[in-house]
Amino acid sequence: MNLKTEDYRVKAGKAVSLKSWKTDEKGSMDKEVGKVTATLLADELAEWQERLYAENKQALLIVLQARDAGGKDGTVKHVIGAFNPNGVRISNFKVPSEEELAHDFLWRIHTQTPRKGMVAVFNRSHYEDVLVTRVHNLIDHQTAQQRLEHIRNFESLLTDSGTRVLKFYLHISKEEQEERLQDRLDHPDKLWKFNAGDLEERALWDEYTSAYQDALTTSTEAAPWYVIPADHKWFRNLLISQIILDTLKDMNPQFPETDLNPAEIKIK
Amino acid sequence: MNLKTEDYRVKAGKAVSLKSWKTDEKGSMDKEVGKVTATLLADELAEWQERLYAENKQALLIVLQARDAGGKDGTVKHVIGAFNPNGVRISNFKVPSEEELAHDFLWRIHTQTPRKGMVAVFNRSHYEDVLVTRVHNLIDHQTAQQRLEHIRNFESLLTDSGTRVLKFYLHISKEEQEERLQDRLDHPDKLWKFNAGDLEERALWDEYTSAYQDALTTSTEAAPWYVIPADHKWFRNLLISQIILDTLKDMNPQFPETDLNPAEIKIK
Repeated sequence: MNLKTEDYRVKAGKAVSLKSWKTDEKGSMDKEVGKVTATLLADELAEWQERLYAENKQALLIVLQARDAGGKDGTVKHVIGAFNPNGVRISNFKVPSEEELAHDFLWRIHTQTPRKGMVAVFNRSHYEDVLVTRVHNLIDHQTAQQRLEHIRNFESLLTDSGTRVLKFYLHISKEEQEERLQDRLDHPDKLWKFNAGDLEERALWDEYTSAYQDALTTSTEAAPWYVIPADHKWFRNLLISQIILDTLKDMNPQFPETDLNPAEIKIK
Repeated sequence: MNLKTEDYRVKAGKAVSLKSWKTDEKGSMDKEVGKVTATLLADELAEWQERLYAENKQALLIVLQARDAGGKDGTVKHVIGAFNPNGVRISNFKVPSEEELAHDFLWRIHTQTPRKGMVAVFNRSHYEDVLVTRVHNLIDHQTAQQRLEHIRNFESLLTDSGTRVLKFYLHISKEEQEERLQDRLDHPDKLWKFNAGDLEERALWDEYTSAYQDALTTSTEAAPWYVIPADHKWFRNLLISQIILDTLKDMNPQFPETDLNPAEIKIK
């Protein structure tokens, strides 16, 4: 397998037109091969996560953003599920509380950033504050641009302090979203995931595209965005696993040095 | 398979003498059969957890306590690892901070209790405040008894509010602890888990036994303690999985009712 993960990375300072990014790619790979490969990656991910946890010096923040039914929950289940739960914390950002709204928009986000040794996953994130708010005209263009600048500064605080930041936009087609929403309607045990509001958001497809394109401009070397072709769940999982694994290897966490001389220690 | 989980439950109002509880039991089962059974249970656990999450009305709190190398981390990895990470939050309670110490001992614990739909796992817990503190004479017997009463009241607040509480004491023998600590010394990639302080705690084996016996008196119908024979990791995982599964089935979470009529909804 030779996944060119760089191809899915948004280059710093470059504008993105999402139309030109594929949603249905499979990396010229067979589904069965892809699934076996993902299983192998899962074992490697767990090993590198253990090193990160043991080293206790660096941290990893994974941001997941997508349209409704875009696959955030599935990514958590299948990719993050490979990790030892002891070293992972998932944060689901829902509608802000009164107290959260009484602070700046990054206040509630900051409390959920990972401590050293940990992997934090944001299932939705601070980016909602330039997406859903912008699309519904709760903030204007200028405020959105100002917030994006605050986000850049905030993420740079994190990366300067030993936390790597990986941001994934799960890119699905409008047809694929229709299929997935219909699937929820067709299965009684999936109906609870269906939200009538999702159809209103779907009607704003192009507005979201535009807001996402703005959000993707925060991609930097240290806190990159990846646009993940997400129509095929197995390929989405494989590609994200590979990117996280490459990142962990690049962080290169080491089991900590110790002053102990094991040979001298006698357990009574 | 027919695991009599009731046998491992501490009866409410009954004093416990840990000597009479086995550490090396295998439930008259073969290791290979046990491992396959655990895999099957993992799938069932994931299904019931999804219902709990979807229902969004009840919660589950799992407390893990053990001596050093007793298997708390292994239980999280192998048992809790079966769950969808989206519905789980692990809390590792370490030495309290200055701010935490400036409050009552349950203050930091309360913030980590699960919201509806979630499973919370306490890897160490409020019980440390009647264990390590008591053994090192940081508190006297009377204070310990008073704290146990506060713990009973606190857990009853949780159970009255829709949170089930399951408490597991992972019961290992002194010989098994020696083997596991030695194993950490013998393997460079496990050495980071070895803490010289563990030997000081080991020297207080009997004092810990006595403190644990006191702690186990907080077992009630709604918030039971289980003493898990934990010398055999596979049996420990299997038994805990079975108890959690039985508890989830007893809670009987249901996919939520909806006012939607799926047939009437048209996705455009």
